[in-house]
Amino acid sequence: MVFRSAPSAIGFAVVGKKEGEGPLGSRFDVVCPDPLAGEDTWEQAESRMQQLALDGVFAKAGINAGQVDCVFGGDLLNQCTATSYAVRETSLPFLGLYGACSACAEGQLLAAAAVDAGFAERAASVASSHFCSAERQFRFPLEYGGQRAPTAQWTATAAGAFLFSAHGKPPYAVSALPGRIVDMGVTDMANMGAAMAPAAADTLCRFFRASGLKPADCSAVVTGDLGFVGSELLAELMNEEGFDLADRHFDCGAMLYDRERQDVHAGGSGAGCSAAVTAAHFLPALARGEARRVVFAATGALMSPLRVNQGDTIPAIAHLVCFEG
Amino acid sequence: MVFRSAPSAIGFAVVGKKEGEGPLGSRFDVVCPDPLAGEDTWEQAESRMQQLALDGVFAKAGINAGQVDCVFGGDLLNQCTATSYAVRETSLPFLGLYGACSACAEGQLLAAAAVDAGFAERAASVASSHFCSAERQFRFPLEYGGQRAPTAQWTATAAGAFLFSAHGKPPYAVSALPGRIVDMGVTDMANMGAAMAPAAADTLCRFFRASGLKPADCSAVVTGDLGFVGSELLAELMNEEGFDLADRHFDCGAMLYDRERQDVHAGGSGAGCSAAVTAAHFLPALARGEARRVVFAATGALMSPLRVNQGDTIPAIAHLVCFEG
Repeated sequence: MVFRSAPSAIGFAVVGKKEGEGPLGSRFDVVCPDPLAGEDTWEQAESRMQQLALDGVFAKAGINAGQVDCVFGGDLLNQCTATSYAVRETSLPFLGLYGACSACAEGQLLAAAAVDAGFAERAASVASSHFCSAERQFRFPLEYGGQRAPTAQWTATAAGAFLFSAHGKPPYAVSALPGRIVDMGVTDMANMGAAMAPAAADTLCRFFRASGLKPADCSAVVTGDLGFVGSELLAELMNEEGFDLADRHFDCGAMLYDRERQDVHAGGSGAGCSAAVTAAHFLPALARGEARRVVFAATGALMSPLRVNQGDTIPAIAHLVCFEG
Repeated sequence: MVFRSAPSAIGFAVVGKKEGEGPLGSRFDVVCPDPLAGEDTWEQAESRMQQLALDGVFAKAGINAGQVDCVFGGDLLNQCTATSYAVRETSLPFLGLYGACSACAEGQLLAAAAVDAGFAERAASVASSHFCSAERQFRFPLEYGGQRAPTAQWTATAAGAFLFSAHGKPPYAVSALPGRIVDMGVTDMANMGAAMAPAAADTLCRFFRASGLKPADCSAVVTGDLGFVGSELLAELMNEEGFDLADRHFDCGAMLYDRERQDVHAGGSGAGCSAAVTAAHFLPALARGEARRVVFAATGALMSPLRVNQGDTIPAIAHLVCFEG
């Protein structure tokens, strides 16, 4: 998808305490020290962080919610409730998405496309995750104190909102590519990086072939949440296809936490991870002229615990948006 | 959203045994007598029905899957797995949606928009639900034999797929309107019709005001899954706003089952209900010239059982697509 009008993009990131203590801590717009964000439950807290991100991006763009034509958004919770309860407060037209951790790029792709096609003058996207609500839903209650596998990633407590506008300053969304489902037969829910790396490779290879660009033409080739295990696999898979990512590859899951000081095993994950990192790090770098072109592919593992328990493997996907300064 | 190119729409409906025995039984493309559709689990069966619907709509249009540019789809299951496992088999670019029972119209809206904007020559949408997988997830295991409330709706075992093309025969998708979240404070998960009727009224009133059309200008004003309780509320709410739906209103949930003979209490529901009924009944009526304009608003209740148990109310939404012959 080529966005001929190149919609302007702006982001706003809200993160939790642990994420605020990580290497990118000072770049996030808001750090919530309280994991409940003043609410009664972790699920409500996740919605609250999305609201802060949406309000924040509207304020940063100098507009009010009423000037936005629609919101695309999703999260990891069953029935995507973090998003629907957050967007409820805005009274804006809303198109709900489910793409697991790829929701951030899926929302950016659709919001940018809506603006580019002239269906909206301004469209927003939002994505989030919360360590506590995700653990409760996908793994074990926190009180259980379960051991985590070395390949497991840490679900980020974070929300990111983006605003795409027909008129505005750089960076711009110039093109995008929806992902295809790739399933290499992985069944280990504690090794999402391995399940998702082939999907990232599929989307990135298709993007480079269709656009005629090479990794070296990009300031950064960013993946959302492969973590350390998946990032190594991605480099191998891309090499096999003739693309050398070399020093251009950055993974949001590998960047969010300090590998030594904040032991999170295989890195960060969650729809909020790549949302917060792109909003607070990569889009501002493009805006300041420190980067020229950032290709962002957010990966998602589309299984459910139930289907994996029934013997199904983990389908993965990666949606891509290309931003330029 | 006005679709100036008016993408052509075609549908294919796959339903279960009970739906096949209902008043519309003979119109569905496929009736699966086996609730497992030859699979091992209900969740896998739901994916299988989606696959049959996608394959069916491609065959009906005389194309193969490789000629389709992307698929939009969603269902009611956690992590939308009915859709992701079904679409996995197609290798097509996929954008996952969550809109609960509104997923059918949400997918149609986005697929038609993708074609109209020129991002796709052909785009598909798919939606499904399955009584057994939905009961297990949202309510009680079937074996428990729980009593159903008189206001409860029966989740349809059904899948519908749609293909939108830049070139093709009538009917055409001519316009659409994304819904806003409306929450009137309903907390009774056994009365979705009451929770969703205000959302349907909000979208329909906005559509009629924006388009300048009246209900009398339409052959049918169709809602997806308000059932008997919600349909009565909708008529009242629309009357208050000055719109008389009179004999033009049809609800897919009220049409799918025989109210007397197949006691399903307040009618049918589920993302597959409105998908199957529009695919098998309304689009063919437009194609045959028996209807001229059908306004289809599919409603969804965006709560999760967890959030309702935490004391939250039920947010609802209704997405609208207008079809013409």
